[in-house]
Order: sequence, then C-alpha cells, then structure tokens
Amino acid sequence: MGEFELIRRYFQRPGGTNPAVALGIGDDCALLQPAPGTQLAISSDMLVEGHHFFPDVDPEALGHKALAVNLSDLAACGARPLAFTLALSLPRADAAWLASFARGLFTLADAHGCTLMGGDTTRGPLNICITVFGEVPVVNGRSQALLRSGGQVGDELWVSGTLGDARLALEALQGRRTLPPEQLQAARQRLERPTPRVALGLALRGIATAAMDLSDGLAGDLGHLLQASGCGARLEAAVLGTLPATRAASLEEAGRLALVLGGGDDYELLFSAPAAQQDAVRAAGRAADVPLTCIGRLEAEPGLRVVDAQGRLLEVRHTSYDHFA
Amino acid sequence: MGEFELIRRYFQRPGGTNPAVALGIGDDCALLQPAPGTQLAISSDMLVEGHHFFPDVDPEALGHKALAVNLSDLAACGARPLAFTLALSLPRADAAWLASFARGLFTLADAHGCTLMGGDTTRGPLNICITVFGEVPVVNGRSQALLRSGGQVGDELWVSGTLGDARLALEALQGRRTLPPEQLQAARQRLERPTPRVALGLALRGIATAAMDLSDGLAGDLGHLLQASGCGARLEAAVLGTLPATRAASLEEAGRLALVLGGGDDYELLFSAPAAQQDAVRAAGRAADVPLTCIGRLEAEPGLRVVDAQGRLLEVRHTSYDHFA
Repeated sequence: MGEFELIRRYFQRPGGTNPAVALGIGDDCALLQPAPGTQLAISSDMLVEGHHFFPDVDPEALGHKALAVNLSDLAACGARPLAFTLALSLPRADAAWLASFARGLFTLADAHGCTLMGGDTTRGPLNICITVFGEVPVVNGRSQALLRSGGQVGDELWVSGTLGDARLALEALQGRRTLPPEQLQAARQRLERPTPRVALGLALRGIATAAMDLSDGLAGDLGHLLQASGCGARLEAAVLGTLPATRAASLEEAGRLALVLGGGDDYELLFSAPAAQQDAVRAAGRAADVPLTCIGRLEAEPGLRVVDAQGRLLEVRHTSYDHFA
Repeated sequence: MGEFELIRRYFQRPGGTNPAVALGIGDDCALLQPAPGTQLAISSDMLVEGHHFFPDVDPEALGHKALAVNLSDLAACGARPLAFTLALSLPRADAAWLASFARGLFTLADAHGCTLMGGDTTRGPLNICITVFGEVPVVNGRSQALLRSGGQVGDELWVSGTLGDARLALEALQGRRTLPPEQLQAARQRLERPTPRVALGLALRGIATAAMDLSDGLAGDLGHLLQASGCGARLEAAVLGTLPATRAASLEEAGRLALVLGGGDDYELLFSAPAAQQDAVRAAGRAADVPLTCIGRLEAEPGLRVVDAQGRLLEVRHTSYDHFA
C-alpha cells in the first residue's frame, strides 16, 4: 500500500463535508471559506507515542483522542468546529491499525460536523498532529471568542464534568496505584476517550468572562487563566474533593485533592462568570447536558489559595504537567 | 527550561504580525480573520528526522525548510501567506539548537509576512509539523486559487527554476555519487534551503490553468496534475536535460533526465497555460525574478511521453518518492 493509496483508502471520504470546506483532500492546499462576519479559531496538538499514549493503546481510542483534544481547544474558545488537517507519521502502513484509527477519528468528527480537509502522511515514529478550525462570530467588530484574559475580580469559577479520573487511570496503568477493575475501566475511559465540551463552549458565549480547557491539571491551567486575567483565586477544598468520579475506598481526601489539582488529561472546561449570571451558567450546563460545579471565585490578590470549610488556608502540593521541566 | 519558557524564549515575538492575525500565541486557540471576499488556502507538512532530513542537519536550514515546503504549497495555489502554526516534538530542550532553528524559521517567515500564530511543543523524536494559511481572492463567486485540475489539452507546460539538484545533493551526501566540492555546496543549498515561489504563484493567478509544486519528482507530480486535469502530456527530453543547475562532467544526459524526472525536493512550480498566454507567462516570471522553462504540452492521450529532438518516443525510467511504497 503506497502513500496515496493509504490516504485514499482510509482518509478520503465522500460524505461528512462541512459547507465551509470549498476544496478538500487532493490538491496542494485545501480551501476553507468561513461565513461572513466570523473569525477562524485555530489550534494544533501533537500526540507522541510513549509521551501522550501507551504503545499498545487501542488505535480507535487514539483516533478519537487525537481529535478530541483539539476540539476541546475549540470548545474553550466557544468556537463551532468546521474542519481539520491531519499529519500522521507512521512506522508502517498497517491496514488493521489504520482502519481502527480512522474509525475513532471519523466517528467523533462526524458527531461535530468537522471535516478532514487535508494533511500529510509520512513514515517515522508514530506521531499524530491535528490542526483544527472553528468559527466564532464577530458582532459589532467584537470577537465572541472566549479567552483566558477576561476574568474579573468577584467572578465565580466553574468547571464542567469530573476531574482527576484520567490521572488516576494513568497511575493505575503505570502500576503506581491499584483500582478495582470496574473503577479502572471507568477511569480509563476518561483517559482514553475524553469528551470535548463543544456544546458547552458554544452555550457559554456571552455568559463566561474567561474560559480554557483543562489538559495539564487544574492548578497549573488555572494559573494561566489568572495570569492572563491579572487576578488571583480562592478555591473550596471540600468542593474540589467531590470532583473525581472515581469513588475508590483507597482514595483518601488529600489524594483526591492532589488528583484534581495536579490531574491532567481532563479535557473539561474551566471558566469564570459573574455571580449574577449563575442562572444563565446553570442553564448552559443543562442545555449542553454537562454537570457544572462552582469551585471558588476570582480575587484581587494574586496567586491561588485553597481553603477548607472553615475558610482556613490549606497547604496543597500540586505539580502541573510540563514536557520539558 | 520548561515548556512555556521554551515557547516564550524562542517562538513568542512581538513583531512581524500579519494584520489578519487577531490573536496569536498564548490562548487555547489563535484567531485568524481573513479579509472579506477571500478564502483560506491551508496546507500541512510534517518533517521527520532520518526521513526528510539528516540527524546532523544545520538547525537553521531545517527551520527554513520546514516553513519553505509549506509556503511552496501556498505558492502552488497562488495564495498570499498570512500565518502558520508550528507543532514541534523535541528529544530535549537544547538552547543553541532552538535559537538556530527559530532564526531560520523566522527569517523566511518575515520575508513573506507570515506570522507564527500558535502551535504545540512536546518531548519526543524530532518531528516538525507546520500548518500554513494563505489568502486567495474570490471574484464573482469564483475562487482565484490555482488548482491541479484546470489543465486543458493544448496548454503549454512550464516549470520554474532548476530541477534535479536537490536529488543530486542527496545522492552525494548518501555516498552514492561524487561531486566536486563547489558543485556539492551549490546543490546542497537547493536541498536544504529551497526557495518557495510565492511571488510567482501570485503572478500566475488568471494566467496558469493548473499548477502544483514539485516535491516528489517531476514525473510523479505531473502524473497527479494529468490525472486531475484528465489529459496526458508530451515532454521534450532535450529541454529537460537542461534543467539541473549542476553541470558536473560526470553527469551524462540519461542521468540528468533521470534526476529531473525522478528528482524530489525541488520545490519549484509546475504549471500549464494556454500557448496564447506565453507573453503573460514570461512577464510573470520576470516579475517574480524566476527563470521559467517550457518543457512540453498537454495532450488528449492519457499518460506521460518524453520525446527526443526528432520527436521519437524515449523509454525513460523514473521513480517517484513514496513514503510507504
């Protein structure tokens, strides 16, 4: 199977085309025509074997995750998915692997009307680089994109879904922790098949003041939002402790807190909104069918503080994921 | 040096911003706002160590080439460069290597007003994936992009610059061929620092009927244009033989022909234009300061034929580069 046959067989498809894609796979460039009065939101993520996934990962889950982490960035900006490019470095052209990878990729792409419009295929160590394009309206000259920089002192801080379970699964798969089989299975789903919160991101436009997706752990990611918004935050330890879905008896409270703060691979949304918008926030969560939790609020004092039920400052350790630290 | 420090130090720059970039590096997505009445031309290329470049390649040349091959795709479509994303997998954060790579990358980017607007950095085997965005006007509902599919029977076929020298350098560097030092030096420049023909692509809008860039060798690449345009072609062997810039005494005519047809890594433009447009084609070449050569013409009979000065069909062997064949 040659390079062009591989593309034709697994990645070139007649259906599923977003009307914004004026020309897809097969020429030197693809052509994308965003609707008038919109901006393109663009994000790129690269997944490397041994760093972002285990060598024996299910290729269908990998196809899903490679696109999911990119759609999660669009969700964080409140952008509607349009299309993506896929650059793929493969050690060999393995038909079964490719069919399974493509199935995971396109099932998620189709669910979001997101068209594979181009890319590159080459031989080399397994590496998947997706660049995704979404549409954000510009109203009266103002972009409706949700940014990290819009948080205001006094805003409430929210997260979607559950946090920490992907990290828990990672630790169990690395043999650093033991989980009952059914709990490992559920946590592993969170690690390998994250759900990008696209509908929630769209529903939060005009409501959230700042937003981002959680990929490297709450504490580190929130640090970026605080820096961009020029403020600090206070989080409620008791609330954070409820965020992991996994209810393992072996998981004491301090452990749950560390998982949530240092987690990673959650792909949930973190956002701020004025307290007066609480009803609108809850309505957005219901519309997108995602549970939302208010975890604290933004404060003028820089830095991140975690307090117990009595308002006492806790000393918490957390490490954010850094590929080069 | 952590991941964010690495990005800040080498890739985040205040200047060089294309006005179409509404938001650059630092948020979940970048925001791109193409001018009204335009389409975005998009292309992705992935370069892998040991496959696309030697492990000991000069990182400055690599930074140049990684962007050049993407700009060459924009050139082939007649698109004006706007911006790009860079996803980079690095075995380690080597300050000297990064500084040199960034210098090569940004020198070329600045020359084309093309802004680095986002991307990803991770640890892993060296892999560089760039996705580039260019602008193409849409006039009366018709895209002005140059495609592979517009060639008409009777059109003349043209190539820009010189062909085969990059392949010659590759063979010499692999020890499969010997070249005098100054000829190796010149040919190596063609391999490691290709010049994307962006100005020529822009000048050919409305003149060329079909266009593409030459990356895998003339014969194979032309095959794609012929298939897309639904016709065949006849090429003049005597003209093809003049295309390599390298004039090594050891390079006999059959060898030059094989280099040109099977070459690879040329990053010149191949295009078709009506014979009546010959003056306009030559004017475009002068405006873009690139020599152009008419190598043959499109014919109704499918397939590729190479003929000698007497019009006799030559049997030519050529192999196109395929990562998986």
